[in-house]
Amino acid sequence: MLNAIGREIPLDILKRLKKEPFQGAYGYAEKSLRKEVAFNIVWPGTGKLVNSISEALVKAKFKDGMSISFHHHLRNGDYVLNMVLEEIARMGFRDITVLASGIFECHEPLLAHIQNGVVSGIHTNYMVGPVARAVSAGILDKPVIMRSHGGRDRAIESGELKIDIAFIAAPTADIYGNIDGTEGPSACGSLGYAFSDAKYAGKVIALTDNLVSYPVSRISIDQTCVDYVIKVDSIGDRAGIVSGTTRITRDPVGLKIAERAARVIETGGYLQDGFSFQTGAGSLSLAVASFVREKMREKKIIGSFGLGGITELFVDMLQEGLFRTLFDTQCFDLKSVESLRNNSRHQEISSSMYSNPFTKGAVVNNLDVVILGATEIDTDFNVNVTTGSDGRIMGGSGGHCDAAAGSKLTIVVTNLMRARMPVVVERVTTVNTPGENIGVLVTEYGIAVNPANEDLKKKLSDNRLPVLDIKELKRIAYNICGEPENLKSKGNTIAVVEYRDGTIIDVIPQFE
Amino acid sequence: MLNAIGREIPLDILKRLKKEPFQGAYGYAEKSLRKEVAFNIVWPGTGKLVNSISEALVKAKFKDGMSISFHHHLRNGDYVLNMVLEEIARMGFRDITVLASGIFECHEPLLAHIQNGVVSGIHTNYMVGPVARAVSAGILDKPVIMRSHGGRDRAIESGELKIDIAFIAAPTADIYGNIDGTEGPSACGSLGYAFSDAKYAGKVIALTDNLVSYPVSRISIDQTCVDYVIKVDSIGDRAGIVSGTTRITRDPVGLKIAERAARVIETGGYLQDGFSFQTGAGSLSLAVASFVREKMREKKIIGSFGLGGITELFVDMLQEGLFRTLFDTQCFDLKSVESLRNNSRHQEISSSMYSNPFTKGAVVNNLDVVILGATEIDTDFNVNVTTGSDGRIMGGSGGHCDAAAGSKLTIVVTNLMRARMPVVVERVTTVNTPGENIGVLVTEYGIAVNPANEDLKKKLSDNRLPVLDIKELKRIAYNICGEPENLKSKGNTIAVVEYRDGTIIDVIPQFE
Repeated sequence: MLNAIGREIPLDILKRLKKEPFQGAYGYAEKSLRKEVAFNIVWPGTGKLVNSISEALVKAKFKDGMSISFHHHLRNGDYVLNMVLEEIARMGFRDITVLASGIFECHEPLLAHIQNGVVSGIHTNYMVGPVARAVSAGILDKPVIMRSHGGRDRAIESGELKIDIAFIAAPTADIYGNIDGTEGPSACGSLGYAFSDAKYAGKVIALTDNLVSYPVSRISIDQTCVDYVIKVDSIGDRAGIVSGTTRITRDPVGLKIAERAARVIETGGYLQDGFSFQTGAGSLSLAVASFVREKMREKKIIGSFGLGGITELFVDMLQEGLFRTLFDTQCFDLKSVESLRNNSRHQEISSSMYSNPFTKGAVVNNLDVVILGATEIDTDFNVNVTTGSDGRIMGGSGGHCDAAAGSKLTIVVTNLMRARMPVVVERVTTVNTPGENIGVLVTEYGIAVNPANEDLKKKLSDNRLPVLDIKELKRIAYNICGEPENLKSKGNTIAVVEYRDGTIIDVIPQFE
Repeated sequence: MLNAIGREIPLDILKRLKKEPFQGAYGYAEKSLRKEVAFNIVWPGTGKLVNSISEALVKAKFKDGMSISFHHHLRNGDYVLNMVLEEIARMGFRDITVLASGIFECHEPLLAHIQNGVVSGIHTNYMVGPVARAVSAGILDKPVIMRSHGGRDRAIESGELKIDIAFIAAPTADIYGNIDGTEGPSACGSLGYAFSDAKYAGKVIALTDNLVSYPVSRISIDQTCVDYVIKVDSIGDRAGIVSGTTRITRDPVGLKIAERAARVIETGGYLQDGFSFQTGAGSLSLAVASFVREKMREKKIIGSFGLGGITELFVDMLQEGLFRTLFDTQCFDLKSVESLRNNSRHQEISSSMYSNPFTKGAVVNNLDVVILGATEIDTDFNVNVTTGSDGRIMGGSGGHCDAAAGSKLTIVVTNLMRARMPVVVERVTTVNTPGENIGVLVTEYGIAVNPANEDLKKKLSDNRLPVLDIKELKRIAYNICGEPENLKSKGNTIAVVEYRDGTIIDVIPQFE
């Protein structure tokens, strides 16, 4: 059947997953719940330290068919997922579902575990590298469930997504399970994506390469969440944290787009005291932030908060007094880790508080402006950051649709074409963020404003910004690149894209 | 029936409350649960600010027979409990149960609400002043339920104690419900006792006299917990925070007791690097801490953590480097509030993390030594800090039994007699802390060691500390004061004392 944005969702998928099709960004749910959590009491005199992953698995009564979770703060430098799965495979377990908030190049060993039947399912918010390619090539029988960051927390907290064991990569931990992400050889900063796992999993196992005496003096995830602590040689390579991120673009076209986006924010009237702002860590987003910073300085504006995965640029803006505080679910570079450790106005938050739609209000609800990227954006403003134009998975929403749904103004910045393929298209390969939540598209060829936002469109035109119809942008792109060929589906579904509220916004077929 | 320490618990009480009699400090529970919490989703574009308590009550669908909770960080300076009950009375509600973590002199207006049928039940951890006296005189039909701090959190989190609406006295709050206790005209510091209420109540209403723009830059209780925010003129009088606390004793007898207690700690071998320590805020406890501080300085010991309600003395010890960190559920003075605001090693924790027995391990489980007081202590080492020797309620366990159950060594410090009444007695009027958790009693007449701790007794004797049998201390006290008269019960029960695990450790009858 077709969902509210005209994407075909197979009925058998809806039925099997017990899901509804996407019905619009603000759904109809008024109530929700945080699930009951059963746990084993730790009485005085009992310790939590175990000698090995296998000992922890035995104590946690691990068995075939269970689901285990991981968080991706160490990004492409993470060792924990591989380490745990290697042990699980060695012990002969099968039919395991991996609930990983992100999957990177470094997680290639997962492929062998899938082939051997150890792993039979994957849920994730973001996926790149060999695993993403293999999934796209149909390696798994069960479709991968792709969620947004907020959607993952919603699913965990409501009890829809059951975690049997959560594994926490702990840069520093004490023997009683208090964890700090900002100290230790693998310090990665915020552990925001691991909070829901730690609070709602059946069992919680912390792995650390920096075991300290009780207690750690800065607690992120606390002892009341953790069942067992394991000392390992290394949980990861810090260099991998920054692997996915870049510097401010130096490309003149990119700078032009970024400067225009900053002018959209200014012209829209958002640059006032109390301004709140999120950008990604891509080179174009960072360039927008850099222009916004200049404007804030000029106008002597004090923003309320910077949000997101946090980069050095936001840390500088905090130190400069351009934001009163930062909310951080993930550090994108080592300067951010240092800032989180030392600056009390740099606040670690759970990704649930950041973006979970089913709470008493996430931080994104208070966001003025977010700058987001797009692999594709269609003439209905629907955005794809999940699949390439070849239909292969090379990303995922992460916080994309969460920030878009919450913020007053969502700006997508992108070149009109990339690698000779149009970015603005008639119909995106995959939708992860619905067009109703995209306010403005800024490209080097012009700015398109969502028709729902007539006021802003007029303001931008009045200020001589180059406003075009999005269909016109598409036409330009198609004129230059040619019309993209239709991808041919093989008929099977390799991934299901859940919107943040748990409805199905799209499915990803295997393409020829 | 008699419970494990020989206290008579009426069967009808056990039946009515669906409770078991006390079975020993470490019960038999291996598993517990954190309850499911239903809540209303706050979507983008919806605010939380309401104009008045009555508006919040209407929105929260408040009705007769409901239970409302309060926390006691403003102690005898709290205005919120009275303010809310006045409005509830004005609106004509009846049969309300008040779940207050502490009740002080300032809460006298509660009496009129009880007499008028607005309030029909009280649960608390600590109760002094007119309300305590009136309860002791039988003002309520239903017995008051008295819990320890950890026991209250256990009851709330497990779902045994249902809070319909939690009212949070918020020294600083933003319009979206983020709360900080360390800023504002009524800054009281840690809000540790309010965490469970905020997380598990049906609805959560924050009252603040310092409403700030979004977001507060130090978040204690966060926006995902709070439904409504109300601006009021004043939530309390900061002077009342320190009302219950005192300075280090100057009384020579007190100093002698304190010095002996410090020698017990030293002789027992506890004064080593990593030493962890809790004291109350009474003048005698503070004196012990002061002597311990001297010894730590002399021996160049770096302690791991100081715990508890936190006082200036502990703050100084942190700053001096005698502790690596402080864990704080409640600030007992304004210097502690300032320290919590400014020193990241002074860490706010929930009272559940502090002391809830049904978690994956509370902080008290890692405590080396706690110094506690006693109104009475009997020859089985059972302690009473709940009732006076006249049988009237004038306190409550608070964290007394929690810290005693967790720490390696529990030392009770007290004068042998007080106001010409023996403190060491044959049988305490009320038991809130079982003797099995008391290691040593230190008085000016000598030191009694729990027979279960033969090793320590020998060490103390070997080091020429004046060790006596506790029965001998009782004999001395009785010789001087005379044997206390038996109190005569009127037959009805005015309060039930729950042990931290939810079993009934004692009941308090109305006395003639």
